[in-house]
Amino acid sequence: MMIKITLPDGSVKEFENGVTPMDVAKSISEGLARNVISAAFNNNTVETSTELTTDGSLILYTWNDKEGKKAFWHSTSHVMAQVLEEMYPGLKLTLGPAIDNGFYYDVDFGNTKIVEADFKNIENRILEISKEKHEFKLHPVSKADALALYKDNEYKTELISNLEDGTITFCDHATFTDLCRGGHIPNTGIIKAVKIMSIAGAYWRGDEKNKQLTRVYGTSFPKQKDLTDYLELLEEAKRRDHRKLGKELELFAFSQKVGQGLPLWLPKGAALRDRLEQFLKKAQKKGGYEQVVTPHIGQKELYVTSGHYAKYGADSFQPISTPAEGEEFLLKPMNCPHHCEIYNVRPWSYKDLPKRYAEFGTVYRYEQSGELHGLTRVRGFTQDDAHIFCTPDQLDEEFKKVIDLVLYVFGSLGFENFTAQISLRDKENRDKYIGSDENWEKAENAIINAARDKNLNTVIEYGEAAFYGPKLDFMVKDALGRSWQLGTIQVDYNLPERFELTYKGSDDQLHRPVMIHRAPFGSMERFIAILLEHTAGNFPLWLMPEQATILCLSDKYEIYAKKVLNLLENHEIRALIDNRNESIGRKIRDAEMQKTPFMLIVGEEEEKNNTISIRRHGQEGKGNITVTIEEFARIVNDEISKTLKTFEV
Amino acid sequence: MMIKITLPDGSVKEFENGVTPMDVAKSISEGLARNVISAAFNNNTVETSTELTTDGSLILYTWNDKEGKKAFWHSTSHVMAQVLEEMYPGLKLTLGPAIDNGFYYDVDFGNTKIVEADFKNIENRILEISKEKHEFKLHPVSKADALALYKDNEYKTELISNLEDGTITFCDHATFTDLCRGGHIPNTGIIKAVKIMSIAGAYWRGDEKNKQLTRVYGTSFPKQKDLTDYLELLEEAKRRDHRKLGKELELFAFSQKVGQGLPLWLPKGAALRDRLEQFLKKAQKKGGYEQVVTPHIGQKELYVTSGHYAKYGADSFQPISTPAEGEEFLLKPMNCPHHCEIYNVRPWSYKDLPKRYAEFGTVYRYEQSGELHGLTRVRGFTQDDAHIFCTPDQLDEEFKKVIDLVLYVFGSLGFENFTAQISLRDKENRDKYIGSDENWEKAENAIINAARDKNLNTVIEYGEAAFYGPKLDFMVKDALGRSWQLGTIQVDYNLPERFELTYKGSDDQLHRPVMIHRAPFGSMERFIAILLEHTAGNFPLWLMPEQATILCLSDKYEIYAKKVLNLLENHEIRALIDNRNESIGRKIRDAEMQKTPFMLIVGEEEEKNNTISIRRHGQEGKGNITVTIEEFARIVNDEISKTLKTFEV
Repeated sequence: MMIKITLPDGSVKEFENGVTPMDVAKSISEGLARNVISAAFNNNTVETSTELTTDGSLILYTWNDKEGKKAFWHSTSHVMAQVLEEMYPGLKLTLGPAIDNGFYYDVDFGNTKIVEADFKNIENRILEISKEKHEFKLHPVSKADALALYKDNEYKTELISNLEDGTITFCDHATFTDLCRGGHIPNTGIIKAVKIMSIAGAYWRGDEKNKQLTRVYGTSFPKQKDLTDYLELLEEAKRRDHRKLGKELELFAFSQKVGQGLPLWLPKGAALRDRLEQFLKKAQKKGGYEQVVTPHIGQKELYVTSGHYAKYGADSFQPISTPAEGEEFLLKPMNCPHHCEIYNVRPWSYKDLPKRYAEFGTVYRYEQSGELHGLTRVRGFTQDDAHIFCTPDQLDEEFKKVIDLVLYVFGSLGFENFTAQISLRDKENRDKYIGSDENWEKAENAIINAARDKNLNTVIEYGEAAFYGPKLDFMVKDALGRSWQLGTIQVDYNLPERFELTYKGSDDQLHRPVMIHRAPFGSMERFIAILLEHTAGNFPLWLMPEQATILCLSDKYEIYAKKVLNLLENHEIRALIDNRNESIGRKIRDAEMQKTPFMLIVGEEEEKNNTISIRRHGQEGKGNITVTIEEFARIVNDEISKTLKTFEV
Repeated sequence: MMIKITLPDGSVKEFENGVTPMDVAKSISEGLARNVISAAFNNNTVETSTELTTDGSLILYTWNDKEGKKAFWHSTSHVMAQVLEEMYPGLKLTLGPAIDNGFYYDVDFGNTKIVEADFKNIENRILEISKEKHEFKLHPVSKADALALYKDNEYKTELISNLEDGTITFCDHATFTDLCRGGHIPNTGIIKAVKIMSIAGAYWRGDEKNKQLTRVYGTSFPKQKDLTDYLELLEEAKRRDHRKLGKELELFAFSQKVGQGLPLWLPKGAALRDRLEQFLKKAQKKGGYEQVVTPHIGQKELYVTSGHYAKYGADSFQPISTPAEGEEFLLKPMNCPHHCEIYNVRPWSYKDLPKRYAEFGTVYRYEQSGELHGLTRVRGFTQDDAHIFCTPDQLDEEFKKVIDLVLYVFGSLGFENFTAQISLRDKENRDKYIGSDENWEKAENAIINAARDKNLNTVIEYGEAAFYGPKLDFMVKDALGRSWQLGTIQVDYNLPERFELTYKGSDDQLHRPVMIHRAPFGSMERFIAILLEHTAGNFPLWLMPEQATILCLSDKYEIYAKKVLNLLENHEIRALIDNRNESIGRKIRDAEMQKTPFMLIVGEEEEKNNTISIRRHGQEGKGNITVTIEEFARIVNDEISKTLKTFEV
């Protein structure tokens, strides 16, 4: 009998019943077969050796796919478990999944103990086994047999007890076997590089009432160079960690007394933030936005109306009660309800639209303390928020304008590598969504057309739209190749309904406007964190806290330094004087540490000739150039004008 | 026997035992005696006819004193009560105190009813009685007699029941008597003008569980002209009411859904606010301040440390709990604890001080809904806050710098009439205050010297300092002669102690810095409200939302109007075009309503000659002048430079 296999490109091929994913790969090309390491059949993970016995859709994964990496790392976890069993007799294995960038195995080491010095031996032994090209073989085991096999392992026993007889599988490779659902690479041979990263404590099943196990973290790659690159990336990421740089550059801090996840912006950080805000405000003013200011709390009723309370109320900061009058307020988790109420202050005609309300609105959302991370996961953050209220016919135009603004922002800040992810309806389940079919068509086409019109590199995801409207998210790659979701643009049919927003149309009837939510930065906190890591603190020149530091060769030149500072201020160049009683070497080191783009050295020669000697950040030994203040101002302005253009609408 | 009377100027005079305040006034001058209407002996209100029988300090009050007015109005309340009793037989009197700008009496009218049409008759009858020059005579009454007299009045009975026998007094004038503690003018003759203002419902003792009474409001004056002026002032105040203007000029709004007392700043209001903030930020930057940004919440612990929780916790917005981890946060009522934590981020040397942290920090404080009033009493407001951390030796200099800044702010905004109220320790009770005697001396002298140095019109109030330090408040008179407390400067020894702030002195030892709290505006909300009422919406030109409106004589001139707008933008003049299909008369009226300083009319002539015809706000019929854009820009800039100077340090 034959079965029909549908491939991702939509093509359908017939195969003998019992064909394996690997067979299918071979039928396509030998090259593909060499690279296939994992597969999914009808959206379930299968082995490349699994026999397919029904019609269905098949996806073949290579190392380049997320699913391929997952199988690769999960399989390496099996090999590591085998090695650990050899090296630490009496240990009990529990669970060993793949994670982002690697895998771990949680182990009860019993009377033995793993130490960092063992890591190298473990790695070597894993590679030895890998070279032997053992196949991973998944096979069913009865519940009774499974329990018997693990009679001394209370963890696996607990896992097996919760499984139904007939669904239990084990995976064998070499002499090792493990309870496992599947999802492996064909054989160990392709594991060419492995690194045990670290060990940490972890409670069985994440519950602190249970026994603490040892979590052994590792990662592996199909090429030694991949591992080397990865480790270098980790080192570079550590150097660029925004928490480290934020402290060194005195941008922000946290206080246990104020509360975790609530950043305090120190003067330099606050100035940087303000500069970003002014930059965006200026562009937004050109774009026809109007700034508004709204409170950081609102009555609970406001969020009941918006629907946020029903959805997030229980998981967020709890209501604020009053000492009398029985009122209840909430910290605002979003600015949109407030902006809807501003729209509702007066009636509008279609001639008045679009209204574009912008606010750098600080919102508060509870996050568990374990989830907090520097500025990227916080409990209070400022969105560069705006809401555009327009007629359905204006959506197309408005969407294009927002994209223009986002591209202007990215361009001015040195993000050049990004894709636009468009999230549309699941067309099979149209009743999941609010708003008329006609409006959805309009909105989805508006987004797709706008993205095409602006030549965006686009990925369309069906079924990923919010229930209230489609959206476009910008996924940005940073200098280390890591992907971040920055700016978002969302269409919303829901809030206009809930807040009963109206405008009078040319037909003299009342209509509902459409709302666009958009934030090019996303949040000031997260954006600055990403920008710090992307630039390693070497912000675009227009944004640098200090663009120059004047270094006096001795305190004899302090008066001249002040004169230079004044002239720089007249040219709107931000600078400061380092007149500490320190050696010039020390002053240079400290300015380098602060990433100051220009070090301006002043001494006898410079004072005499009314000049400064420039040394650029990170360009040790490249020789100073000596220029006048006017020449220097021109250098600075030329460099700025290369990244920071005027926003044109 | 003789007694010694100390007068406010410190002089001590001897009088016969039994001398009255009026006798003392006569002994000073006949003129004073004619004007004295009330007195206080040893800080207790007495009648001008009260016999003094011990040594003590005496203050004599005239109409020009707050206490004099209070006696005047309270006495008029007695006369009104007499008239009401005549006109509404069977009513029951309750309480009738003086208030700001007049008095009221709460009356149970029983089966009768007062209506507005009666007001004129009441006023006339009060004036008739007043002309008869009845003396107010206070005399003791036994509790039994008092209760007997009011046996049919449950309200007075309740009041009397709570008084101790031997302390009860009644006041008689003409045929009328009333339970009264005292504080009257000598006789009814000086009441020359009276006005019943309004009636309103009021619960007995302010408790809504009690019976509702009728509150009759009135006011009175020693001259008819004073009343006329007062009523005109009220009319003008109504016209200038910031709530009315705020709506007409589309500056701010309130939403029941967001919550009362929580202003929403509409685009024009937000722009105005931003302009004020940028103006102050610029001056503060020159003054060596550094902007910081801190969250709007803090852990309860933070306010326990600062002492705010113990003092205000129960009366303010209640703590915010978290869905897990049992944390508690508070909406910040003040920014100072956050700024202390910023100071504490790193160690400081005396060479680094002063540190001046500034923030437009939005704080939240619960107010009963009945207390809320437009922007002057709100539940959330933004302080133009800053905290200066300095050594005790720097206080003098810093205080002067802050005064300079405040004077600059007032000058730029057209507040010319103000006094500086300096609040110092009560020297008799030095142990009430935190901080060493030496530091207090230093701080008080710093304030006094700074105020003298800056030629401030100063009032010193002993015993009015906060427990943590002395302060200086600016009391500003607005265009209607009303007094407002604006900018405040406070010295604080308490928070540096509580937050354990330190700096390393030149002696290499750790010392406590002193803190100065200061806010020239006070709060953005309140300041803008006062500025609105002070200017009636005619803000200084540099601050106006729109400095000019371009009015097209017909839509034929729209292209020219846009050209004019572009040129104005190049000159940084804020303008908009009114190209509605309306008559020029209507456009002018609307621009007048918006208080737009310049209406720029464009038609055939103007387009031909590349000019504009200027009409100034409120100068109807004074004739247009026709100028070029460049000439107009010069006019605008000249006018701005008259009020808005650069802040020089």
